[in-house]
Amino acid sequence: MSKKVDIKNLQIGGGNKIDIQSMFNIKTEKVQEVVSQILRLEHAGCDIIRVAIKDQQDALAIKQIKDKISIPLVADVHFDYRLAISAIENGVDKVRINPGNIGSEDKVKLVADCIKAHKIAVRVGSNSGSVEKEFLTKYGKNEISLAESALLRVRQLEKYGVEDIVISAKTSSVPLTIKTYRYLAEKTDYPLHLGVTEAGTKEMGIVKSAIGIGSLLADGIGDTIRVSLTADPVEEIYAAKKILRAVGIDKNYAEIISCPTCGRTAYDMQSLAELIYQKTISVTKPIKIAVMGCVVNGPGEAADCDIGIAGGQGKCVIFKKGVVYKTLPEQDAIQEFLKEINEIAK
Amino acid sequence: MSKKVDIKNLQIGGGNKIDIQSMFNIKTEKVQEVVSQILRLEHAGCDIIRVAIKDQQDALAIKQIKDKISIPLVADVHFDYRLAISAIENGVDKVRINPGNIGSEDKVKLVADCIKAHKIAVRVGSNSGSVEKEFLTKYGKNEISLAESALLRVRQLEKYGVEDIVISAKTSSVPLTIKTYRYLAEKTDYPLHLGVTEAGTKEMGIVKSAIGIGSLLADGIGDTIRVSLTADPVEEIYAAKKILRAVGIDKNYAEIISCPTCGRTAYDMQSLAELIYQKTISVTKPIKIAVMGCVVNGPGEAADCDIGIAGGQGKCVIFKKGVVYKTLPEQDAIQEFLKEINEIAK
Repeated sequence: MSKKVDIKNLQIGGGNKIDIQSMFNIKTEKVQEVVSQILRLEHAGCDIIRVAIKDQQDALAIKQIKDKISIPLVADVHFDYRLAISAIENGVDKVRINPGNIGSEDKVKLVADCIKAHKIAVRVGSNSGSVEKEFLTKYGKNEISLAESALLRVRQLEKYGVEDIVISAKTSSVPLTIKTYRYLAEKTDYPLHLGVTEAGTKEMGIVKSAIGIGSLLADGIGDTIRVSLTADPVEEIYAAKKILRAVGIDKNYAEIISCPTCGRTAYDMQSLAELIYQKTISVTKPIKIAVMGCVVNGPGEAADCDIGIAGGQGKCVIFKKGVVYKTLPEQDAIQEFLKEINEIAK
Repeated sequence: MSKKVDIKNLQIGGGNKIDIQSMFNIKTEKVQEVVSQILRLEHAGCDIIRVAIKDQQDALAIKQIKDKISIPLVADVHFDYRLAISAIENGVDKVRINPGNIGSEDKVKLVADCIKAHKIAVRVGSNSGSVEKEFLTKYGKNEISLAESALLRVRQLEKYGVEDIVISAKTSSVPLTIKTYRYLAEKTDYPLHLGVTEAGTKEMGIVKSAIGIGSLLADGIGDTIRVSLTADPVEEIYAAKKILRAVGIDKNYAEIISCPTCGRTAYDMQSLAELIYQKTISVTKPIKIAVMGCVVNGPGEAADCDIGIAGGQGKCVIFKKGVVYKTLPEQDAIQEFLKEINEIAK
C-alpha cells in the first residue's frame, strides 16, 4: 500500500478514497471566474483543483481564491522558483513542480525548505517532454527512462527532507503510461497521481484515459486521478467518475447492466435503458439494475442485480436477484419497474 | 502467441490483425434490413458480424444474407442443436454455441460433427449466467469458475475433434473480465474473443469496454473484440476502433495529441483541436499531430509528433518533430497548419 500524504483536509494514498483532480483553463488572477469554475467543478465531484501560476499576479490571487473555495488548491509552477515560493506563501495546499526546470540546486533547496516550512505536499514527476537526457541515452524512450526521471526528482527533494510527495509520470501513449506506473508502483510507495497526458479531444480522450487510468486502478495502482481532455473541465470530472465506477471503486451509484440487444430482443430496450439511466443518474446508493433484451439470458446473466427487467412479445418480466417476481404487459411493467427502483433507492 | 483460426477469408489469432465484431438488433429472417445493416457496419469498419438464430426462418435466411455480404457471418444459437446444424448447413462461417445448453452429449456430438464436416470455426465460452455449478461451489464466483467453465466447454468439443475454437468469457464486471482473460491466456493458446457484456448505455458502456478490452490488448491478450453497447451497433464499431487506436494496435489514422488547456493557454485551442480532429477523421495514414496550449511544454512534450502547433498572445508556432518551423499570426498559422497536414496525409 502507498504512503499517506495529507493535502488540506484530504488524504491521498494509504488506501484512502481515490481523489479526482482537474485543472482549468482561465488565467488564475481572474479570481471571480476562477472561483465560479472551481465551485462548478466541485459540484460535479472534483476533489482537488490545480491552477497554473504564470506570474506574481497569479500567485497573489491564490489567497483570494482559497477564501472562497473548500477543496484543496494546487499550484502548477514552472521555470521560476520565486513563483513557487510565492504560491506557497500565499497559502496553496500543494505545489506541482519539476525540480529539473525550477532552477539551480540552491533554488530547488529554497523551494524544498519553503514546502517543509508550510507543511504542504508536492507533486513531482516526469512527462514525455522532461525525461532526463542521461536516462534517454541509457534506456531509450521507455517506461524505465520516464519512471527513473520521476524518481530522480523525488530523491532530489528527499535530500532536503521533503516527505509528502506524490508522483506522476505522464505520456500520451496508453501502453507506455501503464508500463511506467507499474514500474513506479514496484519501486516506490509514494502515492501515484495517474493520468494520460494530451489525451486529445473528448471522444478519443475518454477512451485513452479510461484504458490508461482504469487498467492501473483495476490492478490496485494509483491514488489520485486526472482525466485530461481538451474540453470543458467538468467533462473531465464526469469521465473520472465513470472510470472509478467502471472498475468498481465507486459503488455508490445506480449501475445499469444492459445487454447489447440482438435478434432476440422484442421490445424497445434501448430507450428503456436510456430512460432508466437518466432517471437514476443522481442515485448515490449502490443499486444494480438490469435491463435485458430477452428472457433467455436476462434473469440468469443478471442474477446479481437487485432488480431487473426483461421483455418480449408485449410482456415483460421483472426479476429480483435473478428470480422472476412479476410478469406484466410491457407498459405496466415499465411503470412498476420504475416504482420498485425508487423504493430500493430510498 | 495464440493459435490461428480461419473464419472465411479472415484469420483470428496467431498475431493477425485484431478483428472487430458486432451483432445487430433486427430479426435475422428480415433479410433486406439485415443486409443493409451489415453493409453499414462493414462500411464503419466491422470485420465479423454475428446474428441470433432463434428459429428455422432465421437459419434459412443465412444463405440469402451471405449472398449479399462479404464479411464473415457468425450464427448465435442457444438451446436447440437442430438450429445450430441448420445454420451451419445454410453456410454460416462460424457458430457461437454454449454446449452446456444445446442439449445432451449426443446432440453436442452431432453439432461438433457438423462443424468439422463444414470446416467452420466455433466460439464457445462462459458468461456470468452460465458458470458451471460445480465450479461455482468449488471456487466461488470469480475468474477461476468463469474461465474453467469456458475451458470445460472447449474440452467437450476437443473430444469430438473440433480444433478451430475461439474462446470468450464475459461478465459485466470490468475487473473480473480482466482477471478471467488473463487466466485464460495463461491456460490456453486458443484465440480469445474479448468483451465486457451488458456494458450498459453508450456513455458508460464505452468506458467499461475501453478499460476491460483495452487493458487486456495493451498486455497482448486478445485476438478479436466486441464492444457491447445498448445503442446503434455502428457505435460499437466506432468505440472498438478508438480502443484499437488508443492502445497503439491500429496506427493508420491521424492521432491528435492535445493538451488539456490550462491558465497558460492564450488562444482557442479547444476549437482548433476539434477542428483538426474533424478535418482528419478519414485519414488512414499514421500521422501524429499535436495541438498544444502553450510554447512552455508544447514542442518538447510533442517532440515525437510529425507536426504540431502551439499558441499564445496572437501568435502560433508550428513545429515538426519538436523543432519550431514557423512563427505566424494565429489565423495564418492555422491555415498553414492545415495545409501542412494535408501535405503529410497525401
